[in-house]
Amino acid sequence: MQSLEFQDDRLRLIDQTRLPHEVAYLDCRTAAEVAEAIASMRVRGAPAIGVAAAYGMALGAREAAQVLGGQADPERLAAALRTVAERLRRTRPTAVNLFWALERCLEVVGRASALGPAGVAEELRRLADQMAEADVRANQQMGQHGAALLPPRTNVLTHCNTGALATVGYGTALGVIRAAVEAGKRVHVFVDETRPFLQGARLTAWELQRLGIPMTLITDSMAGYFMARGQVDLVLVGADRIARNGDVANKIGTYTLAVLCRAHQLPCYVVAPTSTVDFELASGADIPIEQRNPEEVTHLNGQRIAPAGVQAAHPAFDVTPARLVSAIVTEAGVCRPPFELSLRQAVAIRQTETLPAEALP
Amino acid sequence: MQSLEFQDDRLRLIDQTRLPHEVAYLDCRTAAEVAEAIASMRVRGAPAIGVAAAYGMALGAREAAQVLGGQADPERLAAALRTVAERLRRTRPTAVNLFWALERCLEVVGRASALGPAGVAEELRRLADQMAEADVRANQQMGQHGAALLPPRTNVLTHCNTGALATVGYGTALGVIRAAVEAGKRVHVFVDETRPFLQGARLTAWELQRLGIPMTLITDSMAGYFMARGQVDLVLVGADRIARNGDVANKIGTYTLAVLCRAHQLPCYVVAPTSTVDFELASGADIPIEQRNPEEVTHLNGQRIAPAGVQAAHPAFDVTPARLVSAIVTEAGVCRPPFELSLRQAVAIRQTETLPAEALP
Repeated sequence: MQSLEFQDDRLRLIDQTRLPHEVAYLDCRTAAEVAEAIASMRVRGAPAIGVAAAYGMALGAREAAQVLGGQADPERLAAALRTVAERLRRTRPTAVNLFWALERCLEVVGRASALGPAGVAEELRRLADQMAEADVRANQQMGQHGAALLPPRTNVLTHCNTGALATVGYGTALGVIRAAVEAGKRVHVFVDETRPFLQGARLTAWELQRLGIPMTLITDSMAGYFMARGQVDLVLVGADRIARNGDVANKIGTYTLAVLCRAHQLPCYVVAPTSTVDFELASGADIPIEQRNPEEVTHLNGQRIAPAGVQAAHPAFDVTPARLVSAIVTEAGVCRPPFELSLRQAVAIRQTETLPAEALP
Repeated sequence: MQSLEFQDDRLRLIDQTRLPHEVAYLDCRTAAEVAEAIASMRVRGAPAIGVAAAYGMALGAREAAQVLGGQADPERLAAALRTVAERLRRTRPTAVNLFWALERCLEVVGRASALGPAGVAEELRRLADQMAEADVRANQQMGQHGAALLPPRTNVLTHCNTGALATVGYGTALGVIRAAVEAGKRVHVFVDETRPFLQGARLTAWELQRLGIPMTLITDSMAGYFMARGQVDLVLVGADRIARNGDVANKIGTYTLAVLCRAHQLPCYVVAPTSTVDFELASGADIPIEQRNPEEVTHLNGQRIAPAGVQAAHPAFDVTPARLVSAIVTEAGVCRPPFELSLRQAVAIRQTETLPAEALP
């Protein structure tokens, strides 16, 4: 299963707001439609929205070809595509993969704008395809590295959705679980429902069910109960942005799990590709936290659950300080503290495309 | 506002499953109807279900009068009422106030059974009335004692519902907030929505709105985020049962809040009447934890939110160890560690009906 696929003239997405009730597809034929799909979380998950945005840029270049004509001035073309990138950039502020992908797209635009709109569109499409393939490959590599951390029989607790739906395919934290199961380990998963958007109850439960991996769905408030009873061995989560010191922004509730892990002396592992690391940020204090519509808290499936007029807050992410993170599993290996060093090593390894499985540093 | 009221031949309850959408009343004319209302959480909150059960016993005695006739044999009458008590006892296992109330009712039955069914019904009605009045009075006393712990301007985080709805009137933890506001303190409340039953989003938000107390509704997973930002000064929660060492069983998620308080060096206060203390239990490990229907996790307002066939768990309570509890506010004063001593002192004071405000021990 892939969360998204480019077909001829459109980006076809699984509409994740409709799961688990139905597997509905959404076809985006314009960059604006891709931006809307990202903002409304029809496609979500840091790696998935990065690749979706790259395809959005390719669609934007095709639109530019129609508007500007086949022989557009390279400067005008580049300016038009910077506007498209800006539109895609404004959708969600926290996950850095989105910005990382758009920057790589704009580099291609800079290099290829002399080829004209059609040529640029072709190059952007090629780049997005490469990102999509690299994402699945990176997930499988993270799966291998991370699976080695899991005992032969284990109870894992996870939060939000980090599976095939959050990526192009396979998954990050859920990819580690899949790889462990494929390697013959016996894994049972506690799935946090992950209010308010219910990515755990709606998406992770659906993916695990399809994969035949045993699970127990719980509310976010139950994680501590099961840890205190000794029923959880470790926590595996993804990340939306990692500062260079190893502070991790991830779905709201992750920080609480990390605090609980420390209180119960359990490992808390973060699984994310190196594209999630933002070396420009010294610490998590600099990561912008998306504040979403509070109606996502006061309503559920369009039904009001709180009294009318009640004020609510909806920070969509929180920051887990590096001191509470046991390891960060990347496609280049397992990074251990101090993360400032090990994350740089992971990126260096990634860039030389040599991918040893041993731990870093 | 009172959560319940006895009128002529019926116990009239606010149906808490219908809030906040409508204020609907449920009339219980038999003990079985009261038992059903407790089991289905139409009336909930440890103090409220204790008093509701006592009125259920009074209704059961009236039914016995009809079945057994006005001059029933005292032994047969007592046996019939023990059966009624057993039916009420089986509704919910964790909150001890229920068992405490039923035991006091059976003591009255033992003393009064020679008066015949009508006389016993009258005595039980009188006892239930006394419990209801004592509950409101105890709440107001807890409010006074607890309010003294709050700074003049403060941000309190609370979980579940501990207001007038959870008691006969006024509230325990929410009563402390009310008393602080009535004393001129400026209190803003973070309200955990409290999945799966949403007592926070549905009931606490509704009560605070009616009282005009400023609040922000959050999901349970957001408490850590606001604590890390320094936006929470303290946590106030109720209790369903307290072991004699001070371990506290309360709504699922309370333990996690206590762990978060410790990590952020914030006070975690429990507010509960002495009837919540179970001196027969040495520690929280002995408190039975109600396992409710997992459909309350996989569904919301009758709507399925998780895929069909997914296994879920629904422990309705967790146990917070005494070492994470800063103080227990009772109607007899504020109990501090070691709780084994201070809780006994509180009960002794309660029994002599002298109620000094100073801290215990």
